[in-house]
Amino acid sequence: MDYRAAFRNALDRVRSEGRYRVFADLKRHRGEFPRATWTRGDGSTSDVTVWCSNDYLGQGQNPVVLDAMHRAIEEAGAGSGGTRNISGTTHYHVELEHELADLHGKESALLFTSGYVSNEASLSTLYKILPGLIVFSDELNHNSMISGIRAGKREQRRVFRHNDLEHLEQLLIEADPEAPKLIAFESVYSMDGDIADIRGTIALAKKYGAMTYIDEVHAVGMYGPRGAGVAERDGMMAEIDIIEGTLGKAFGVMGGYIAADRVIVDAIRSYADGFIFTTSLPPALAAGAVASIRYLKEHNEVRVAHQERAAALKARLKRAGLPVMPSVSHIVPVLVGDPVHCKMISDILLEDHGIYVQPINYPTVPRGTERLRFTPSPAHTDGMMDELAEALEALWVRCNVKRIGGYAA
Amino acid sequence: MDYRAAFRNALDRVRSEGRYRVFADLKRHRGEFPRATWTRGDGSTSDVTVWCSNDYLGQGQNPVVLDAMHRAIEEAGAGSGGTRNISGTTHYHVELEHELADLHGKESALLFTSGYVSNEASLSTLYKILPGLIVFSDELNHNSMISGIRAGKREQRRVFRHNDLEHLEQLLIEADPEAPKLIAFESVYSMDGDIADIRGTIALAKKYGAMTYIDEVHAVGMYGPRGAGVAERDGMMAEIDIIEGTLGKAFGVMGGYIAADRVIVDAIRSYADGFIFTTSLPPALAAGAVASIRYLKEHNEVRVAHQERAAALKARLKRAGLPVMPSVSHIVPVLVGDPVHCKMISDILLEDHGIYVQPINYPTVPRGTERLRFTPSPAHTDGMMDELAEALEALWVRCNVKRIGGYAA
Ligand SMILES: Cc1ncc(COP(=O)(O)O)c(C=O)c1O
Ligand SMILES: Cc1ncc(COP(=O)(O)O)c(C=O)c1O
Repeated sequence: MDYRAAFRNALDRVRSEGRYRVFADLKRHRGEFPRATWTRGDGSTSDVTVWCSNDYLGQGQNPVVLDAMHRAIEEAGAGSGGTRNISGTTHYHVELEHELADLHGKESALLFTSGYVSNEASLSTLYKILPGLIVFSDELNHNSMISGIRAGKREQRRVFRHNDLEHLEQLLIEADPEAPKLIAFESVYSMDGDIADIRGTIALAKKYGAMTYIDEVHAVGMYGPRGAGVAERDGMMAEIDIIEGTLGKAFGVMGGYIAADRVIVDAIRSYADGFIFTTSLPPALAAGAVASIRYLKEHNEVRVAHQERAAALKARLKRAGLPVMPSVSHIVPVLVGDPVHCKMISDILLEDHGIYVQPINYPTVPRGTERLRFTPSPAHTDGMMDELAEALEALWVRCNVKRIGGYAA
Repeated sequence: MDYRAAFRNALDRVRSEGRYRVFADLKRHRGEFPRATWTRGDGSTSDVTVWCSNDYLGQGQNPVVLDAMHRAIEEAGAGSGGTRNISGTTHYHVELEHELADLHGKESALLFTSGYVSNEASLSTLYKILPGLIVFSDELNHNSMISGIRAGKREQRRVFRHNDLEHLEQLLIEADPEAPKLIAFESVYSMDGDIADIRGTIALAKKYGAMTYIDEVHAVGMYGPRGAGVAERDGMMAEIDIIEGTLGKAFGVMGGYIAADRVIVDAIRSYADGFIFTTSLPPALAAGAVASIRYLKEHNEVRVAHQERAAALKARLKRAGLPVMPSVSHIVPVLVGDPVHCKMISDILLEDHGIYVQPINYPTVPRGTERLRFTPSPAHTDGMMDELAEALEALWVRCNVKRIGGYAA
């Protein structure tokens, strides 16, 4: 058996599909976000503007967050030194879970090492707790949700068309009325920037006796008067059974969580392997997250500025005739529709214009919908937007990409 | 459908088996490890000695590590702000992967958010890269390995009796000679403290054309002249195909990784969902880990002190007639053999003696082998060991636990 050949073949497949990934080596500079230093493979460097960070609000450089992290390191050291059960529960973890429960108006919250793990571990564990559970999953749900949902048998999984409540209802009607049911969906879909109909989904859940599980990873910190997400904005937070979020995007740190009724959280805490058998987050991350959440609860003006910047960028790019996809959120995707073009444009932007935006290709999005995905933060200036629009205009001509796509307004 | 009742039932099952977990809320104090402050449910506090941390060498409070973390926070901020591919690869990540490759003498290394994720994501991905792969797994492998191995179909998984090379060989003989094969095992088994026969395992792998995957989570930092693990100590590092480790135990921070040939690492990097679709580690954790690894490469005296402390504790407890299990590593397990007793003893140790050691019950260990598991570090003094031995002696009499088990020397 020639193992090396098998690994090489696997890599050749990725390369032949134009989706071999070269990671850009960046160094952000505290206080200067979204500027960063990019190091090429040969060791040479350039300054760039980062246009694709999920540190959506720049909390990763908020002094309030950094001070809390420094303090926790001084007080408690580096790592937690254990799983939550075996010496790895610190005061910082307990405090953060209280803060998260309060943020979402739930009785209880549970921390995981990432948003990925929170989805995978929670969803897979619900099958253990609710025998015969059927999960209804939006077809564009994130890989981490799918990975958890796959733990169920084939007949326990139903996929409904993206944000299509009629299709969801049809699947609910067809399912055994006695079976336990869960509808799993996201609020903001991060590659398109569209937002789910939370009210409509909950109405269906009530009608057919299903629980609801919402991923607010791309919404927490950014929507709702206290930054608890779209369910808060829409006044539906109390109606959702399980809310999942991340500490690694708008909150600017790292980690994931769920918030729910105490009995739900306690059961998942007691059964979820991905929660039980792993070292807990370092105290400094928990402390930074608490500071970030508290700050964003009280600073709605950051959210206002964020939405204004997103609207400004959409308007600016549309004026330039670029195919901005119809996002209703802070995410600004521009359609390219071809993986090789998409990679080429982003390479030229980086090398010639000092603009860093990663090409988004399959498997992150469906083939044929390859795109550039911009995430303007409150720190992105009008001048940066002008530079970006001009560079894109020039490139769209040079690369002969379709200009007014089906999407342009 | 009464969902609350289902969650309550799940919790009742855990409680009725005596394995409902109450997390001890601890606050470590930098510079005073293994001392910590324990906060009870009612808010009152006591000082305790932690005897069950996996921060085995106290690196979580090493100023070299903390300084590196502070510096990275000052330079680059809190979180990385993205997945590795989308703006989340920083200079710190690149440097850490080089450091890890160097540590293990491999061409390449790949960072994950935890040891758990590194095992789960890498092992499950190998099935995608090597169609028809059969994985031979030690029956006591960690939950994270099992979780990855479960991604294969039933006929692709073989479980061999713990550290039983005869049984492994028998299973290898029975398998299709043409099928790709992987032997997955650990070096130090953390609940028993026994160590695998790496040389013998590799000999079988060569004889039957299998690859090898070793989890050195409880060995990295602690064994081998530069702290690369038991495979380094035994001179077998170059013969192992994939070495997996954690940054969250002896290195004192958080994160996980694999090290291997470039082509293997690159293929896993390109296919592993649990690597691709998640926010990368914060720069400060990567920086702290680099500092910790470099420090331990050069300070073999920490490993010498660690082994001496473990030997001292084993001797002290055996002298007291306590059933120390036959560990050949730094881990000191003492058999209790009953979950209720085990929990009771640890509760009394904490409340009356200021000694914190978590009871290890099912499902972490098989039923009937419930134990206390002590992890003496270089910072645990003779005085602390005397206190511990005296407290245990008194409790063994009071609780009438079997004194000289099958294990006592
Ligand atoms: C919708 C969604 N859920 C979950 C995750 C995972 O969160 P984390 O990055 O904290 O692992 C992501 C992205 O990373 C995401 O886009
Ligand atoms: C053998 C083994 N492998 C992997 C892990 C997971 O590592 P981490 O804590 O970094 O997730 C653990 C314990 O947590 C372990 O004991």
